[in-house]
Amino acid sequence: MTSHAVPPVALPHEVKLDRLGEIAVKVGLGLAPGQELVMTAPVDALPLVRRITEHAYKAGASLVTTLFADEESTLARYRFAPDGAFDKATGWLYDGMAAAFRNGAARLAIAGENPSLLAGQDPEKVSRANRARSKAYMPALEMIAGFATNWTIVSYASPSWAKVMFPEDPEDIAVARLWHAIFAASRVDGPDPVAAWQAHNADLQRRTRLLNDARYAALRFTGPGTDVTVGLADDHEWNGGATTAKNGLVCNANIPTEEVFTTPHKARVDGFVRSTKPLSYNGTLIEDIEVRFQGGAIVDAKARTGQEVLLKVLDTDEGARRLGEVALVPFSSPISQSGLLFYNTLFDENAASHIALGQSYSKCIRGGVDMPKDQLAARGANESLIHIDWMIGSGEVDVDGVRADGSTEPLMRKGDWVS
Amino acid sequence: MTSHAVPPVALPHEVKLDRLGEIAVKVGLGLAPGQELVMTAPVDALPLVRRITEHAYKAGASLVTTLFADEESTLARYRFAPDGAFDKATGWLYDGMAAAFRNGAARLAIAGENPSLLAGQDPEKVSRANRARSKAYMPALEMIAGFATNWTIVSYASPSWAKVMFPEDPEDIAVARLWHAIFAASRVDGPDPVAAWQAHNADLQRRTRLLNDARYAALRFTGPGTDVTVGLADDHEWNGGATTAKNGLVCNANIPTEEVFTTPHKARVDGFVRSTKPLSYNGTLIEDIEVRFQGGAIVDAKARTGQEVLLKVLDTDEGARRLGEVALVPFSSPISQSGLLFYNTLFDENAASHIALGQSYSKCIRGGVDMPKDQLAARGANESLIHIDWMIGSGEVDVDGVRADGSTEPLMRKGDWVS
Ligand SMILES: [Zn+2]
Ligand SMILES: [Zn+2]
Ligand SMILES: [Zn+2]
Ligand SMILES: [Zn+2]
Repeated sequence: MTSHAVPPVALPHEVKLDRLGEIAVKVGLGLAPGQELVMTAPVDALPLVRRITEHAYKAGASLVTTLFADEESTLARYRFAPDGAFDKATGWLYDGMAAAFRNGAARLAIAGENPSLLAGQDPEKVSRANRARSKAYMPALEMIAGFATNWTIVSYASPSWAKVMFPEDPEDIAVARLWHAIFAASRVDGPDPVAAWQAHNADLQRRTRLLNDARYAALRFTGPGTDVTVGLADDHEWNGGATTAKNGLVCNANIPTEEVFTTPHKARVDGFVRSTKPLSYNGTLIEDIEVRFQGGAIVDAKARTGQEVLLKVLDTDEGARRLGEVALVPFSSPISQSGLLFYNTLFDENAASHIALGQSYSKCIRGGVDMPKDQLAARGANESLIHIDWMIGSGEVDVDGVRADGSTEPLMRKGDWVS
Repeated sequence: MTSHAVPPVALPHEVKLDRLGEIAVKVGLGLAPGQELVMTAPVDALPLVRRITEHAYKAGASLVTTLFADEESTLARYRFAPDGAFDKATGWLYDGMAAAFRNGAARLAIAGENPSLLAGQDPEKVSRANRARSKAYMPALEMIAGFATNWTIVSYASPSWAKVMFPEDPEDIAVARLWHAIFAASRVDGPDPVAAWQAHNADLQRRTRLLNDARYAALRFTGPGTDVTVGLADDHEWNGGATTAKNGLVCNANIPTEEVFTTPHKARVDGFVRSTKPLSYNGTLIEDIEVRFQGGAIVDAKARTGQEVLLKVLDTDEGARRLGEVALVPFSSPISQSGLLFYNTLFDENAASHIALGQSYSKCIRGGVDMPKDQLAARGANESLIHIDWMIGSGEVDVDGVRADGSTEPLMRKGDWVS
């Protein structure tokens, strides 16, 4: 008798890349027939751009436009441009993107930048350039943050990013390891990726429903270097997984995503926090952040590396030192368990509970999407040019829900959901 | 006694590419310190984009933005997009570019497209897509055609273009041959490319001065299949080589350039013309065009290949079957002598005298740059969504200047200047 044991055969890279393109269009964007698509991507990501473009047209897209960014060209500016150049941004391009969104275009961003691209550059120039860009991008960002259209972010394993993550490996090995992590986290490995995403979205939806029903006044995080009470905005609403955009289309804004998140109250955060993972901010690595909050604002801040950039960020505007988001991610989530540090918010924020400095999401206030700014502010929603997530969760951090009467309820122990 | 004969050493490719970048910035754009630069390029042209970006920043550019185009993504649209998609264009992006030009940005285009990219696609879709794009691009194109800002076009030897030119060579040889031709035509081979361009510009300026002094009423082209009298616009002005843009900066709009050109009178063209080189129009090759003009308009047109696209082009609008440019290029010019067919207007128009269907250049009317449209039209300047050059000169074509009194003067014999 002969028995043929069939070993599990790994899918070829091209098949996985094509599936990532399909997930990006069908799950990430939920692209509608006839819709225009505006994509941004690093030049390295061209192979994925082509897979996404094909799937978008097959899904009925009318026109797909990709705006590529080249890291060498960005560096050339820091190396050779005159000092006066750094307050300029491509407002004409961001205004154009905002116009496209207003006219119904969907938005897809491919992430894959070198996290330490600008590490060696003058922090003063980096900060001025970031500030100019944030300001110019504001009208488009507001539409994205408010889900005026369906949008998503997916990732590409570019060599410069892979080398930062795996500095001891040769480039091809580093890229292969990063692809392995991206494909796993993006759930394209299984037999039916689209179905896997539907199940995952259902899990996240159950969790947000429980939290919305609980209506905590605050969350308290405790762990090494951390004891902070994060007040939640009045009428806050928890979100996670799929979102229905204002145009009625259902999208997954982040691929991967493991978080449930809501809006803190901008004046009700008190205590001290230590970051649990490095923050990669526009090419600068900010490590071991320690801050103290008082009445919602950061009143003391330091960091082991990148402190100068961090302090400049906090000075961006009035809202930059207050919180716009608080998010819960279990320590046992797949990205966390990979043990990898991605130096990329899209992944690292999905490995740990986190908070974000700056702009809040109006959809995290009940009825907030159509609310005027002053009413959002009255409920405690923060406003800023920036939105920067940084990780405060780990296997050593506990989270409690705090009720309006001061009673508490354990939510997470050693980083994982109690129930 | 030993004698060391030193053979002439060819410059390494990287040096020539860098020089092409330098020529593009210094001669092509005449970029001013503090100026923004908007560049368009095929993704293949990334190495040249980086050389240009570096030279632009060294020349004091404040911000260089490159909009890349990917031919595979363009093809995916024709293969997979729904039929209704083809009337859509990226108006938001073209409007953004126009806004950048209005705010002082310079404009650089890198040409290097596959000339037969769309040859196998449905001509109806190609025509609708071209029409939608031409319309959306109009505000930006008008600023470029009117030299509201300094601009230039340079070329990159992309593999898809090289393979069309040298179908029998392996790809690396084809690319190397195309580079050889581009570098030679762009005058980067000699010891001092910038000085070579200054001398060339002086030659072209002398020729335009002679023609402007002569004030011909018309030009008559005669040769195999051709006997056409092209009336010149009232107050026409000959141009060639460097141009002073409205912002005061001196640019060379085409690298290479060998032509002197002016505006025909839109109602005074009569006779028949046969094209002398194939016309590559948005991916379709149109060969052996034969047309008959009457009162300025094409009343009969056929072509051996691409006739369907040609006929659709002529129907674009009222001005599409009338002339917007007539240009003289000696048969002995370097590009003509290379004997190569580039399937690319930037090169082929500089190998032969030509005419252009459609939009005229306001700078080719005396005082035209600041003239309202109705006054330009009163002088005979044509208006259209399109501007398409096609070659009517060769070693067998003669050109005569025709004075207002009907007397003639030989200008070119067998394709070369008489004096
Ligand atoms: Zn988050
Ligand atoms: Zn966030
Ligand atoms: Zn011309
Ligand atoms: Zn022309």
